[in-house]
Amino acid sequence: MRLVMIRHGQSEWNKLNLFTGWTDVDLSEEGVAEARAAGKLLKEKGFAFDVAYTSVLTRANHTLNLVLAEMEELWVPVYKSWRLNERHYGALQGLNKEETAEKYGADQVHIWRRSYDVLPPLLEEDDPRQSKFDRRYQMLDTSTLPSGENLKVTLERVLPYWEDEIAPSLKAGKEVVIAAHGNSLRALAKHLEGISDDDIMDLEIPTGKPLVYELDDNFKVLNKYYL
Amino acid sequence: MRLVMIRHGQSEWNKLNLFTGWTDVDLSEEGVAEARAAGKLLKEKGFAFDVAYTSVLTRANHTLNLVLAEMEELWVPVYKSWRLNERHYGALQGLNKEETAEKYGADQVHIWRRSYDVLPPLLEEDDPRQSKFDRRYQMLDTSTLPSGENLKVTLERVLPYWEDEIAPSLKAGKEVVIAAHGNSLRALAKHLEGISDDDIMDLEIPTGKPLVYELDDNFKVLNKYYL
Repeated sequence: MRLVMIRHGQSEWNKLNLFTGWTDVDLSEEGVAEARAAGKLLKEKGFAFDVAYTSVLTRANHTLNLVLAEMEELWVPVYKSWRLNERHYGALQGLNKEETAEKYGADQVHIWRRSYDVLPPLLEEDDPRQSKFDRRYQMLDTSTLPSGENLKVTLERVLPYWEDEIAPSLKAGKEVVIAAHGNSLRALAKHLEGISDDDIMDLEIPTGKPLVYELDDNFKVLNKYYL
Repeated sequence: MRLVMIRHGQSEWNKLNLFTGWTDVDLSEEGVAEARAAGKLLKEKGFAFDVAYTSVLTRANHTLNLVLAEMEELWVPVYKSWRLNERHYGALQGLNKEETAEKYGADQVHIWRRSYDVLPPLLEEDDPRQSKFDRRYQMLDTSTLPSGENLKVTLERVLPYWEDEIAPSLKAGKEVVIAAHGNSLRALAKHLEGISDDDIMDLEIPTGKPLVYELDDNFKVLNKYYL
């Protein structure tokens, strides 16, 4: 079984050095170029997908569309789920990373960014950034959506989607691509590779570089490489 | 209930005056601009979709992606089906319209293009243009896929998708957009408006112009207009 993961390229807010999380910013021009290059490379290497999964955030959707367009595979079924969203960065969303370090101290920010199970400051109930005010989450039980996540919580909400949707597609013999985010892909990598809580934050999945997993029938990783 | 239809803009083969049908050509630059303009207009007018339907042909997929991108709604669920494909033009696919008229006579070509129930010359069983050789149709019973269609046959294969997928979404209160083709949309318009077999071929749905239907609970057309 073969699975390809692609982390979206540079976004407008990466450029501005802001905490993004669930904030719905688009790719920068550089991010667009990264996505196109990933699609070209996948095509060159003979990849051909049967099904694609992505988050409900524009920068991942845009990345996937550009990849599939380059591969001349825009007809491939695409499924979008909030469960593949980036880690929710709570009340930090929209703050400049440097300014946040000045305000809370570099050590505290380091903990928020790098610990596996420490939550960021949560969004207040009535914060306009809450998902309940966003149309794309309206069909969900918004009361259960996060107001801030660490990687542990991210993994817990990614995993049901992996188990119920993505893994069955692989079992059915489909070639699968997932276009998502640094932390939702990190969560999947932790699950697949059995990486420890302590080590997982050191795993950096580069943007725009297709990451290929070859798996046996029990989802044991046989091979892992970047294109 | 409100339904929006968008016919894809100019394709590379429209420009070359070739019969296209199920041939998978992309939009021309002009077609890209038409799709973007449609998305901008829909956003300006306050449209906001809950679900989108399209064919498995690149020019319609590309149109839909550009429309949703302009509307900042790339997260909207998109369903793609061969049932929304353009009319299959059989053995005429890839032929120049003028040359075909010289070869078969202008009257014959007029009949193929404008009659409701005359089939075009069909593709031979082993023609490389047959759908059974195309990866996107591999999960289907390819033996039942068309080798050439008139509008009547097109309508017969569009209708099950309307009945089983699109109409239920409208009934459930969703705002629906369909990005498709001259003849699959014409088929839907015939069904919705009860247009006769004789009159339907006179209905020209312009490219890139959102066509809005307002319907009552029994799918009776209350209002129809172009944006």
